[in-house]
Amino acid sequence: MASWQARDPDYEAKVRDSFARQAAMATIGARLGRVAPGEVEIELPFRGDLTQQNGFLHAGIVTAVVDSACGYAAHSLMAPGAEVLSVEFKVNLLAPAAGERFVARGRVLRSGRTLTVCAGDLFAIRDGAETQVATMLATMISR
Amino acid sequence: MASWQARDPDYEAKVRDSFARQAAMATIGARLGRVAPGEVEIELPFRGDLTQQNGFLHAGIVTAVVDSACGYAAHSLMAPGAEVLSVEFKVNLLAPAAGERFVARGRVLRSGRTLTVCAGDLFAIRDGAETQVATMLATMISR
Amino acid sequence: MASWQARDPDYEAKVRDSFARQAAMATIGARLGRVAPGEVEIELPFRGDLTQQNGFLHAGIVTAVVDSACGYAAHSLMAPGAEVLSVEFKVNLLAPAAGERFVARGRVLRSGRTLTVCAGDLFAIRDGAETQVATMLATMISR
Amino acid sequence: MASWQARDPDYEAKVRDSFARQAAMATIGARLGRVAPGEVEIELPFRGDLTQQNGFLHAGIVTAVVDSACGYAAHSLMAPGAEVLSVEFKVNLLAPAAGERFVARGRVLRSGRTLTVCAGDLFAIRDGAETQVATMLATMISR
Repeated sequence: MASWQARDPDYEAKVRDSFARQAAMATIGARLGRVAPGEVEIELPFRGDLTQQNGFLHAGIVTAVVDSACGYAAHSLMAPGAEVLSVEFKVNLLAPAAGERFVARGRVLRSGRTLTVCAGDLFAIRDGAETQVATMLATMISR
Repeated sequence: MASWQARDPDYEAKVRDSFARQAAMATIGARLGRVAPGEVEIELPFRGDLTQQNGFLHAGIVTAVVDSACGYAAHSLMAPGAEVLSVEFKVNLLAPAAGERFVARGRVLRSGRTLTVCAGDLFAIRDGAETQVATMLATMISR
Repeated sequence: MASWQARDPDYEAKVRDSFARQAAMATIGARLGRVAPGEVEIELPFRGDLTQQNGFLHAGIVTAVVDSACGYAAHSLMAPGAEVLSVEFKVNLLAPAAGERFVARGRVLRSGRTLTVCAGDLFAIRDGAETQVATMLATMISR
Repeated sequence: MASWQARDPDYEAKVRDSFARQAAMATIGARLGRVAPGEVEIELPFRGDLTQQNGFLHAGIVTAVVDSACGYAAHSLMAPGAEVLSVEFKVNLLAPAAGERFVARGRVLRSGRTLTVCAGDLFAIRDGAETQVATMLATMISR
């Protein structure tokens, strides 16, 4: 896997500031975890009011945290002042999103001037064991 | 476009019952609209607590309502007793999700015994005019 | 559906010139059909040497013609001198690609300065009847 | 990464037989490389008649070899007698597909009774160095 260099020395503050302005993340109870150049983690405790009809986390909520993890992984490598927007993503749901809490991990696969391609995964944590529940492939744009 | 026949005469009640059990939909304020064989609409009023860093609807919330619209479009054509699960989806974000309210429309492209392929769109409504903000291509499975 | 205006008065010649330089299209026997602003058709006669293990057109060949149809639909709306490249695409295979010949239709959903989002479909023609065999959602970039 | 066990003791012969029946692979000059449980490699020498308008490998040809690598990675884990078909895939093109030859690597992410989810990558080899040119996320079905 590539090891990335941030162009913006304040990449971590930039990412944390932007995440703090994502009201949707606060609403669902997501917290920003580790922020490194090209890699970001977001944690989400399970909540019964975020589920689909079988009591698992709704695929849209799964997507929300993995999309934000991918977006901020991309953002961490962008030039100072750049904003990040999602162009598109594809998600495969690999297992029911059941667990006490979840960790979304986003990482940059390709960093370009305009477009950044990211991969992201969601893991469910239950009794200390991690199970992968989803994987994302996403394209982000610098604005 | 294909015109579909429901195999389950109670398809509408089945879809409305399942939607009512999606706690995430209530949490974000989404309401089930029209339900027809192979076609479902979901309405979502704008709320500031569902946004990303620029004040637009978060891509995960966009995905949540379009995924549910696609999933229930698929569900409406499934045999009695069948449950629907999302296998995977891909979303392109076409314009900022800004508006007073949003309508997600899901429709079935291919209905198989095991897998159903759906297309979905999200439209923003502002001053009575609709703008398309996202499009989805999704695969659903009958369980 | 949107009706598009070409910015380049020579859009058709530009598209036909570029298509003629796609050696892969000649190799598989694909021919450029209709070219309109934001809409392109490519025709492909069936050939036994383009198949997968069951004798249907290989998914990569399906993708090749739909990707080119989407790419040139995007190209037709780009400024004079611009080249088009595929950023990403997603394909759902809806039915076995069996037929005497195939028609790929690409159309623009969103036309931006940098990125263009397209939808494309592949239809199989047998005894004069069309069956949809695949659908694509694609992102193209202007270079 | 998961380490997989093949259910079919003859998985390698099964995969090699099926690949040999993919006429499209012979037409483009692709060769089956390593076959292990849940992992398959396909090699493709560069040929000028497989290119797009800039002289790079056409995205459809890129897709063809990565799709076959993913499909056979899935096939290697399926029960004896099962056939594999592509349900859908998404490809991101990361760099121009320029090189003397290419290697597609497919691997299984999730192996289910009906559906298998795979990831695949294409690498270009030039002067002995590998560059990643594409990545795929795919869903395969057992028939």
